[in-house]
Amino acid sequence: MPTAGALGILAGGGPLPVRVAEAARAGGREVFLIGFEGYANAVALAGWPHVLLRLGAMGSILAALRAQNCRDLVLVGPVRRPSLFDLRPDAEGVKILARIGRAAFAGDDGLLAAVVRVLGEEGFRVIGAHEILTEILSPPGQMTRVGPDRQAMADISRGVAVVKALGAVDVGQACVVQQGIVLSVEAIEGTDAMIARSRAVARPGPGGVLVKLVKPGQDRRADLPALGPQTIHAATAAGLRGIAFEGGGTILTERDKMVQLADEAGLFMLGIDPLTWGETEGPTT
Amino acid sequence: MPTAGALGILAGGGPLPVRVAEAARAGGREVFLIGFEGYANAVALAGWPHVLLRLGAMGSILAALRAQNCRDLVLVGPVRRPSLFDLRPDAEGVKILARIGRAAFAGDDGLLAAVVRVLGEEGFRVIGAHEILTEILSPPGQMTRVGPDRQAMADISRGVAVVKALGAVDVGQACVVQQGIVLSVEAIEGTDAMIARSRAVARPGPGGVLVKLVKPGQDRRADLPALGPQTIHAATAAGLRGIAFEGGGTILTERDKMVQLADEAGLFMLGIDPLTWGETEGPTT
Repeated sequence: MPTAGALGILAGGGPLPVRVAEAARAGGREVFLIGFEGYANAVALAGWPHVLLRLGAMGSILAALRAQNCRDLVLVGPVRRPSLFDLRPDAEGVKILARIGRAAFAGDDGLLAAVVRVLGEEGFRVIGAHEILTEILSPPGQMTRVGPDRQAMADISRGVAVVKALGAVDVGQACVVQQGIVLSVEAIEGTDAMIARSRAVARPGPGGVLVKLVKPGQDRRADLPALGPQTIHAATAAGLRGIAFEGGGTILTERDKMVQLADEAGLFMLGIDPLTWGETEGPTT
Repeated sequence: MPTAGALGILAGGGPLPVRVAEAARAGGREVFLIGFEGYANAVALAGWPHVLLRLGAMGSILAALRAQNCRDLVLVGPVRRPSLFDLRPDAEGVKILARIGRAAFAGDDGLLAAVVRVLGEEGFRVIGAHEILTEILSPPGQMTRVGPDRQAMADISRGVAVVKALGAVDVGQACVVQQGIVLSVEAIEGTDAMIARSRAVARPGPGGVLVKLVKPGQDRRADLPALGPQTIHAATAAGLRGIAFEGGGTILTERDKMVQLADEAGLFMLGIDPLTWGETEGPTT
């Protein structure tokens, strides 16, 4: 009787790839990890069946997945979005890139969506990391002792409007708003770097809020926004009063630790529904 | 016979306030400058009829303008957008703030447009700096020896789409795009800081382009985007290949020097029409 085969884990950085592996194995499933060179934590992967490969070595990646009888795949952990120049594709990679098309390189999600599509055409099934690690998904509602006050609610509304506008042109997923002023907007530098920079332009008075959302139309199997304890550290250092994210649409890598750090610093963590948020609270502009 | 009175110049930072004063005086008109404390160049203003006042001292500002018989006003030179907290309005300022309304503080242009409206209600007439200093407005078309190649044209198209989306939610006026990837997006940190930060996230291969536009609906009398030699220095240091801006809608503070610096570094300067750009070239995404 054929088994489901090993779960293939395409591993970028951070702690999640190994946690997905642990959860799958705890559920009785074998795993095989492909760590992307320069991103995956090679030390953490050492105890698992794995291979380290370049992102551009697509032929070797597909061959390894087939040799290990992987049909189901999880893409998890951040990878710096490559340019066509530094991808250095292998022979199979060149063919796959032709199928992905240059246009996919003009935005973040275009590329990931195209990768998921090509993997599907190659006979694989892409599963969201949150389908394996169900407890990492952010809940809706207030997670911390303190919640947003009236000004913070208004700032969240403005942030939701800004991030939606950015998402519509496939840029960034986050911004920082203080007293109605947008202090910083995310491009590809990463959320924590964006938070850190908002400190230098912050105004006196009540601090800002981080708003981080899933892009409209984003393939949730490939690239859910992720926040972790380092986000709370960055937010605290930048004088923010809290963070708002999509309830059920954000990966919290170490949820209990995040809540503990936020409570210690007096920050709020709030899971919102961006679709209804604007309707019920009304944006301030 | 009543004269036109002195031209009132509400002066933020940079070299333009004094250049507006010189141009007005050369045209036979007296001037009176109000330098905003912390922004205006007090040394440069010293040779002119002037007073230094806090932004929030609106009562004193209006009284000074009336005492000097100023009816026409020019707002020129950058001022860091104040929060309600650090404005510290005087008694008249409190009344004026009530007329401006809190909502105006939720976006950059809302505030400036409201200030222009209130000045109009007070009997003043606000004139664009470019109406006095006609030669500082950017021309349309290529200003430098080199122009954008095909990739740079595609990057400009992507940048136009991104800045338009940002402008629709009243945030920033600029972004940097390299090979279709949006490296950085401007919030309130200023264009030069945004350019500088794009260096750390740049990809190998052909460098990026800066796109800077007037926001849709922006009051051109109050806040045209301004670029100067420091922009060319920042772009060169960040490895950019050129800058694109709105032809006829951007202030170039030292045009000849900018073109000279750009030509020395091999950068292009291109005045575009963002309204027709997307139609004729087509965005890449």
